[in-house]
Amino acid sequence: MLFFEGSEKKLEIVMRPKSDSLRALGHKYWQKMVTKARADILCSMSNDQCDAYLLSESSLFVWDNRFLMLTCGTTTLVDAAAHFIHDRGQQNLDFVSYQRKNEYLPHRQRTTVNDDLKKFRTLLDIKAHQLGYLDTHHHFLFHYAHPDYRPPSHDITAELLMYHISEQAANKLLHPRSIESIREFLALDKLLDGFILDDYLFEPFGYSVNLLKGDDYATIHITPQQCSSYVSFETSLDLSGKYRFIVDELLKKLRPRAWDCIGFNTKPQVPEQRDYLLLGECQLPLECGYQVDFNYFLDGHQTPLTIREL
Amino acid sequence: MLFFEGSEKKLEIVMRPKSDSLRALGHKYWQKMVTKARADILCSMSNDQCDAYLLSESSLFVWDNRFLMLTCGTTTLVDAAAHFIHDRGQQNLDFVSYQRKNEYLPHRQRTTVNDDLKKFRTLLDIKAHQLGYLDTHHHFLFHYAHPDYRPPSHDITAELLMYHISEQAANKLLHPRSIESIREFLALDKLLDGFILDDYLFEPFGYSVNLLKGDDYATIHITPQQCSSYVSFETSLDLSGKYRFIVDELLKKLRPRAWDCIGFNTKPQVPEQRDYLLLGECQLPLECGYQVDFNYFLDGHQTPLTIREL
Repeated sequence: MLFFEGSEKKLEIVMRPKSDSLRALGHKYWQKMVTKARADILCSMSNDQCDAYLLSESSLFVWDNRFLMLTCGTTTLVDAAAHFIHDRGQQNLDFVSYQRKNEYLPHRQRTTVNDDLKKFRTLLDIKAHQLGYLDTHHHFLFHYAHPDYRPPSHDITAELLMYHISEQAANKLLHPRSIESIREFLALDKLLDGFILDDYLFEPFGYSVNLLKGDDYATIHITPQQCSSYVSFETSLDLSGKYRFIVDELLKKLRPRAWDCIGFNTKPQVPEQRDYLLLGECQLPLECGYQVDFNYFLDGHQTPLTIREL
Repeated sequence: MLFFEGSEKKLEIVMRPKSDSLRALGHKYWQKMVTKARADILCSMSNDQCDAYLLSESSLFVWDNRFLMLTCGTTTLVDAAAHFIHDRGQQNLDFVSYQRKNEYLPHRQRTTVNDDLKKFRTLLDIKAHQLGYLDTHHHFLFHYAHPDYRPPSHDITAELLMYHISEQAANKLLHPRSIESIREFLALDKLLDGFILDDYLFEPFGYSVNLLKGDDYATIHITPQQCSSYVSFETSLDLSGKYRFIVDELLKKLRPRAWDCIGFNTKPQVPEQRDYLLLGECQLPLECGYQVDFNYFLDGHQTPLTIREL
């Protein structure tokens, strides 16, 4: 089975108040940004607040005063970041965050975390943290904040990253009858009621969807391949409150062996009914005000390990 | 704190009956083997059955009909394997096993697991397995067995690999008053009664010891550095039987956050009194008769994660 690194790098940049609109920069500008990361734009949709692009490797969301770019595989998101910061100027930035999530095969990446950090430090006064231990799930977070930047407490990001989904779920996602059958399997209309969506079925495997509702977004990326299956869900919805059922539903459907929860100003909750083991938890308060939470979990029923012949 | 990859690669080769004695090949031969792996011999000791070498990166044990070589850091043990197999001839080999243990930073290694496998496959009809999932502790085992080879059931290897030892233990090992104080801390005379030993204290950090008693061996390698601390214990003693107390004592002393147990013809037991979580287990029976067990564990009290500023 072909290996694919589903795990994403993530860049989020918030502009200073009264900066030029990022949406007004236009499709060509963002096309160039995506190319810098070695990805392509596949399609896009818009509402009044946001332009959402589906990429050959993940997603890009552009609002007037901020953008969010997620790229998986062996993309070089750091190059897009460097291009943007150089082009728009550090003085116009309120907040920059860059994450590298837990990778299956870090040695296949084009750059190491240290390479990326070195590049960022030529551009900005970056703070960098490793959350978690090197021998198991861990994440890297770089950030820069303008001294005046204070994000409102409702500025929320929640990430649910699922590793090694069940064979049943993988089969439904590897061999869907149609793109509609994946939407139906995920029950997107129930999970994210009232959202408009733009999705893409990859050949031979993989599925991505962007969803928008007003200022809110959600995005799901699925790498169903055996031995390296990975599903990420990211949203501005508060998964610890009203939308907690989404985590419950996704875990029930996909039955990952392990999963990570990362929250900015929210701490995604795990379902109370489920047999899981909390393997690690930490909280990192950023000076500008964001509370970053990272927790990871193991399905308590899934201790038998896979043996794979190479 | 300087990063060092304590996690080892391991090569074990058993010769066909009536092959030339490996010990008789002499120091110069083994010096060359070690150089091929990009390591050096620091010192050695012998008893009637075995020559035991301490290396700049781990250990080499040579008996008349088999040898065992462990190398850590960024050594290229595969090159030593290729040299030996080429030099002695495939027809003289009963059994070859090569392991790559769970690495903290696989992207810093000189070769990937796939590189190593490709090289082995040019030399032998190798079977290769990945034990465990890619997102967390997992090990690679390559092996070749002569069709006539049947190891006796008392041909045992037990490995206890400990990740992220407690700060108290690390402090004792980072700043020992003397080499004797490490021996005393580990209580080597009690753990391995009647063994002769040869040990080495590295600058600025690190400790290695080889131990021999008749045909039996044991070896301990300590990388005490914060964020990547690692202690490995490997022996021919049966840690599931009479010597089970050794596992108990080492875990009590070192209090690792996580540990792996790997056994050939033995399944190392964990202490019954201890609060731990079994995170994964599997058994791989090799055609020639070895039963390979891999289990890994998390200290149940150590779910708070480290946050490291980079």
